[in-house]
Amino acid sequence: MPGAAPGAVPGEASGDARTGVWFVGARGSVATTAVAGCAAIAAGLHPPTGMVTETPPFAVAGLPAPASLVFGGHDIACVPLPKRAEELTTAGVLPPGLARAVLADLTAADTEIRPGGPQPGDTRGDEELITAFAADIVAFRERHRLARVVVVNVSSTEPVPTPGAARLAPSSLYASAAIRAGCPFVNFTPSTGLRTPGLLAAVAARGLPHAGRDGKTGQTLLRSVLAPMFVQRALTVRAWSGTNLLGGGDGAALADPAAAAAKNAGKERVLADVLGTAPEGEVHIDDVPALGDWKTAWDHIAFDGFLGSRMILQTIWQGCDSALAAPLVLDLARLVARAHERGLSGPLPQLGFYFKDPDGGSSALAEQFTELLSFADTLRDAR
Amino acid sequence: MPGAAPGAVPGEASGDARTGVWFVGARGSVATTAVAGCAAIAAGLHPPTGMVTETPPFAVAGLPAPASLVFGGHDIACVPLPKRAEELTTAGVLPPGLARAVLADLTAADTEIRPGGPQPGDTRGDEELITAFAADIVAFRERHRLARVVVVNVSSTEPVPTPGAARLAPSSLYASAAIRAGCPFVNFTPSTGLRTPGLLAAVAARGLPHAGRDGKTGQTLLRSVLAPMFVQRALTVRAWSGTNLLGGGDGAALADPAAAAAKNAGKERVLADVLGTAPEGEVHIDDVPALGDWKTAWDHIAFDGFLGSRMILQTIWQGCDSALAAPLVLDLARLVARAHERGLSGPLPQLGFYFKDPDGGSSALAEQFTELLSFADTLRDAR
Amino acid sequence: MPGAAPGAVPGEASGDARTGVWFVGARGSVATTAVAGCAAIAAGLHPPTGMVTETPPFAVAGLPAPASLVFGGHDIACVPLPKRAEELTTAGVLPPGLARAVLADLTAADTEIRPGGPQPGDTRGDEELITAFAADIVAFRERHRLARVVVVNVSSTEPVPTPGAARLAPSSLYASAAIRAGCPFVNFTPSTGLRTPGLLAAVAARGLPHAGRDGKTGQTLLRSVLAPMFVQRALTVRAWSGTNLLGGGDGAALADPAAAAAKNAGKERVLADVLGTAPEGEVHIDDVPALGDWKTAWDHIAFDGFLGSRMILQTIWQGCDSALAAPLVLDLARLVARAHERGLSGPLPQLGFYFKDPDGGSSALAEQFTELLSFADTLRDAR
Amino acid sequence: MPGAAPGAVPGEASGDARTGVWFVGARGSVATTAVAGCAAIAAGLHPPTGMVTETPPFAVAGLPAPASLVFGGHDIACVPLPKRAEELTTAGVLPPGLARAVLADLTAADTEIRPGGPQPGDTRGDEELITAFAADIVAFRERHRLARVVVVNVSSTEPVPTPGAARLAPSSLYASAAIRAGCPFVNFTPSTGLRTPGLLAAVAARGLPHAGRDGKTGQTLLRSVLAPMFVQRALTVRAWSGTNLLGGGDGAALADPAAAAAKNAGKERVLADVLGTAPEGEVHIDDVPALGDWKTAWDHIAFDGFLGSRMILQTIWQGCDSALAAPLVLDLARLVARAHERGLSGPLPQLGFYFKDPDGGSSALAEQFTELLSFADTLRDAR
Repeated sequence: MPGAAPGAVPGEASGDARTGVWFVGARGSVATTAVAGCAAIAAGLHPPTGMVTETPPFAVAGLPAPASLVFGGHDIACVPLPKRAEELTTAGVLPPGLARAVLADLTAADTEIRPGGPQPGDTRGDEELITAFAADIVAFRERHRLARVVVVNVSSTEPVPTPGAARLAPSSLYASAAIRAGCPFVNFTPSTGLRTPGLLAAVAARGLPHAGRDGKTGQTLLRSVLAPMFVQRALTVRAWSGTNLLGGGDGAALADPAAAAAKNAGKERVLADVLGTAPEGEVHIDDVPALGDWKTAWDHIAFDGFLGSRMILQTIWQGCDSALAAPLVLDLARLVARAHERGLSGPLPQLGFYFKDPDGGSSALAEQFTELLSFADTLRDAR
Repeated sequence: MPGAAPGAVPGEASGDARTGVWFVGARGSVATTAVAGCAAIAAGLHPPTGMVTETPPFAVAGLPAPASLVFGGHDIACVPLPKRAEELTTAGVLPPGLARAVLADLTAADTEIRPGGPQPGDTRGDEELITAFAADIVAFRERHRLARVVVVNVSSTEPVPTPGAARLAPSSLYASAAIRAGCPFVNFTPSTGLRTPGLLAAVAARGLPHAGRDGKTGQTLLRSVLAPMFVQRALTVRAWSGTNLLGGGDGAALADPAAAAAKNAGKERVLADVLGTAPEGEVHIDDVPALGDWKTAWDHIAFDGFLGSRMILQTIWQGCDSALAAPLVLDLARLVARAHERGLSGPLPQLGFYFKDPDGGSSALAEQFTELLSFADTLRDAR
Repeated sequence: MPGAAPGAVPGEASGDARTGVWFVGARGSVATTAVAGCAAIAAGLHPPTGMVTETPPFAVAGLPAPASLVFGGHDIACVPLPKRAEELTTAGVLPPGLARAVLADLTAADTEIRPGGPQPGDTRGDEELITAFAADIVAFRERHRLARVVVVNVSSTEPVPTPGAARLAPSSLYASAAIRAGCPFVNFTPSTGLRTPGLLAAVAARGLPHAGRDGKTGQTLLRSVLAPMFVQRALTVRAWSGTNLLGGGDGAALADPAAAAAKNAGKERVLADVLGTAPEGEVHIDDVPALGDWKTAWDHIAFDGFLGSRMILQTIWQGCDSALAAPLVLDLARLVARAHERGLSGPLPQLGFYFKDPDGGSSALAEQFTELLSFADTLRDAR
Repeated sequence: MPGAAPGAVPGEASGDARTGVWFVGARGSVATTAVAGCAAIAAGLHPPTGMVTETPPFAVAGLPAPASLVFGGHDIACVPLPKRAEELTTAGVLPPGLARAVLADLTAADTEIRPGGPQPGDTRGDEELITAFAADIVAFRERHRLARVVVVNVSSTEPVPTPGAARLAPSSLYASAAIRAGCPFVNFTPSTGLRTPGLLAAVAARGLPHAGRDGKTGQTLLRSVLAPMFVQRALTVRAWSGTNLLGGGDGAALADPAAAAAKNAGKERVLADVLGTAPEGEVHIDDVPALGDWKTAWDHIAFDGFLGSRMILQTIWQGCDSALAAPLVLDLARLVARAHERGLSGPLPQLGFYFKDPDGGSSALAEQFTELLSFADTLRDAR
């Protein structure tokens, strides 16, 4: 039956075939960390901390093994993956010695990276770009005789597109290319991706599963855990304010107010959904290059208790964004690959656990986790 | 059918009969806030913020209305409730004007407070004290023709009793008195209460419901929300450290290391239960009289992410302990009263949502909330 | 000799004469708190916490006594001071009972408040307004036979004026009026006030002392204490980021980006001055009405230690803005009044202790305090 | 004149002679970081961040250059310095690559480390130990023809000695040995060292300079900066509470309540000195091995403002203890060596800037810095 799934390579049993993961933004911190980390875990060099799909409830879900994943992708940057991995080691994202230990895997993935676009001066139109990108993906699949390829967008956040713009946003070009190549698509960023009426229709017509949008790695993760507490305890949240400090590429991208707006919409959506109303308070994202890949998020929550007593909760989250994102990206690639193998298509609201702005489902983390566990159960083979 | 429930006043319909709430520690901050707040809510002066039982899922659970609750209790302190309420107003716990607005209710409750014990120099033995306390409770029930009385311990935390002590801990004396008077018992403190083999047998024999132990109002509430997040995300908690600063009576009581030990055991239990193993880290409770009833709890959580990356979450909770506890105490009195009316007996693990050290059930708040909602459903009348 | 000082009422000895304090923004939170607090301190109801001029080093500086201050001012708001004081009591800024205890003082000050401007629809030009304001101040001085009047701007922050604007900023109108009336001027806000070439020339010509700009009450106070520590310890500050949450009138005023820009310039100036270079990092000021007059300021400082080790200091300041500002405003009125009595004129850089953007002097608090103490010494009578 | 200074090698000009630094605890994190860092700075591999003596005011004070320092010491541990440096690299204390770059220096220092004591089973008495230790130091001085040797205690904190104990504390044995060898002594720990009547008399008799006690690296550094602010602003500190989390050797040593008591005494002393009275509040030091050498210190300061308004400042300091201590240790070795060269003797209160529990002088950092600068000035050559 897996052999009959759309997108599968005919005549190849899923048990033996490998699965492709095609990163949009393949030379970025998240992709580099995911490739290096997957290799390290497959080699037994590190425990799979942070990978939810490596915990017991997922053992019989039929997910592709970390060792069976093959990586490639698009990027407009040219720094080779082994060098990026060294940079991430200096920055404290990767542990000392790891980049060298998995050098072969990094090199192999690097040879599968193709130029992204459109870059400045590129005269190709949308259609041409989509065709080129799709061809890159198909060639990758065929070259490695992969059962399937999941396309995962981990590139920098785009500005919110202006309504009525003549051209597609870059993230939508890549999403189109994924559809054309018959590949499931995961959007780990707040960019548009498949979220246009035309693309949603196209992906539905092709019967492909997809998941998004905007990975939930830090401040919003906390918010999706804490906001339900206030509701459950009948405490009234009056204001929820937050500031994020981060350097790295994401900090610079989000220093663009339009890109930050895309990101913040997701953060505030969680609160409004869970609390039933949007509280006072703003969210700031500051580019602080001195922090590199390490992110600090401060949240200040003013709430009312019994008889109107004023109380405050503050949280400070200090994490490494790439290290938070990479295991979730691997989780998603595995889960969506398996969904594709099982013939599922359309949006997967059961993966809301991973996203700030999911395709439906609850906004409270505990419920999202329950939904994820039962999704894992449905992925099991009937046998 | 309610008329047949154990402890009900024969011949009185539950719809009309009022319910007694007997506080052990009736002149403390929590009890004073509960009495004043219940009157304010019944009179429509304040919304019932913080009372979970006033949210929609509990509307048809058949709980006694706030206006139908009658308060009394034991205390060794002599300051009358109206004066305590003024003190709490100055301390910022009660809003300005409230104490005056509900003066009649405070005065009425104050006339129902009887001397607690044993006080220094008291020559009465355990049996004499239990008999006296039970008589006070029975007289209260008869004087007001109450359908039932729930005894709720909100007194200061006791030191952990020394094993093999000749006498019962005071909290156990009151628990015994409740059993003897045929009353359900709620232990909102970390003190022993019913948690002795003899008393657990006695309460089972009498067919009374009971709930405890140690109200979950601040730091532990947060822990029961945050700890599951780490587990669900497969992040490894390495150390969880905490410091609590509080003044008020509780601060002074917990400055006693033996009392603090009782409190801390509950806090650490939540982590060990949810995380599967106790992380490094200590919990401190400091008496800081300058803070009065306002408590500050700082938590520092060191955890490992992907590839061993070291990350940190810190939380700072600033709340008013009495304002956090009082609505939960009212919730519990209502729920346990209704459980008694419905003929339930024994420990109620479905109320784990309210406790640091519950009588079974999950330690994760989201699951405890689900259990509470389904408990509310079972309390509905069959009609 | 005091009789000969510019601006003194002829024939009146300074020992007997009272001193006027004329607030621009006389019905705002700061002015209301200053009037109520001065009365409370004069009556012995409260210790003078927060008033530096009531500490021993100032005992012989010849400052006017709190009881000798007479208050008046301009405002465009109409809510009477006693009502404003009640509002501040509800908001927790003034202690319960105080507004009633000093009702007579509040009422007396309220009768000395005149309409400010320009208000919408006001057709008067700058010259007319200055003349009217100056007349109000002179009439106040004469009516109460005051030795002198210090004009203190405590109104909401103005937007930064556009260069080449045809009209003066409101704060400059009031500053002009002060000069015309022969009064020293204190600018406790980041608004322009005297900081125009024309007005600086005018105030110099009149021989009047003046002080400003932008009272240092919270986050910047901390910065002026902490930044020198990094310098003294040879630690390299890489990024200093901050977020301020505040409600009240100031929060709303500073939600205007132009007004916030004025405020932030002062905050960042301190760091650049002390550190020798401006570190990375931004400052946000968010309007959070739920917080009322209570301000929370979070600062995150990333610094390098030995061998480039990365370290972090975070501070969280929770204070009541009006309560922080009011005693400093009283200090300044007293000090500048005395400077006027002693015949000093021009800017007073010795008062840099009080300001974010002072008229010269050090930016480090410890040095500013030393300068203030030696200024107090110079104010002593020769006798 | 330097040639005449006590302890100088006769006939050797100070300009050419090198200076010895003899660490008690020479294989600990602080000493290892100091040796590696000094070599890195001397070789121009790193800027001297954190070394106050490398800032301009110290340029002409005649201090021995970093390149002229020769290291040795006592330790009971056996792990060689190069291996310790690798461990500190893994722990993130030393930057990647540094340990290898300065391998020769680490190896050289390691050959100058002699066994400390008394170790378990050691049957030597105090006198024997002192003699042996002094001989080690003298041999080191002669072997390298050093102008002088400064003995610096950077070993783990000892428990507070019981009064009337028959034997000297280990730190006092080393202090005695320093005196006997004619060497200045610096006590960077809270241990007893020279602080016994007998040793203070002995060091005075020998005319040696000495400095101590307990390096001020984190929480207390902040306290010595913040406490003066409250005093200068006439704000009343009501409670100052603190918690320190640290792993590494120091965390384990301070988990011993007696050792922690020694450390805390210094912390609380600063507050009482500056504030004039000890505020409420406790200090906790928790051993959290998961944090390694990284220390987190949380401080919560409750203070009163105008009219009794309640305000709060919290600080969170996250630093690497060894990286904070090492440059100060190098500073002290250089300053005390120069003091010795200039013939100064006795306690040096001018070095209070570096200590929690200094030998007199101010407790406020800004004043201590001024005292340090003027001390640097007095160290200049008369020429």
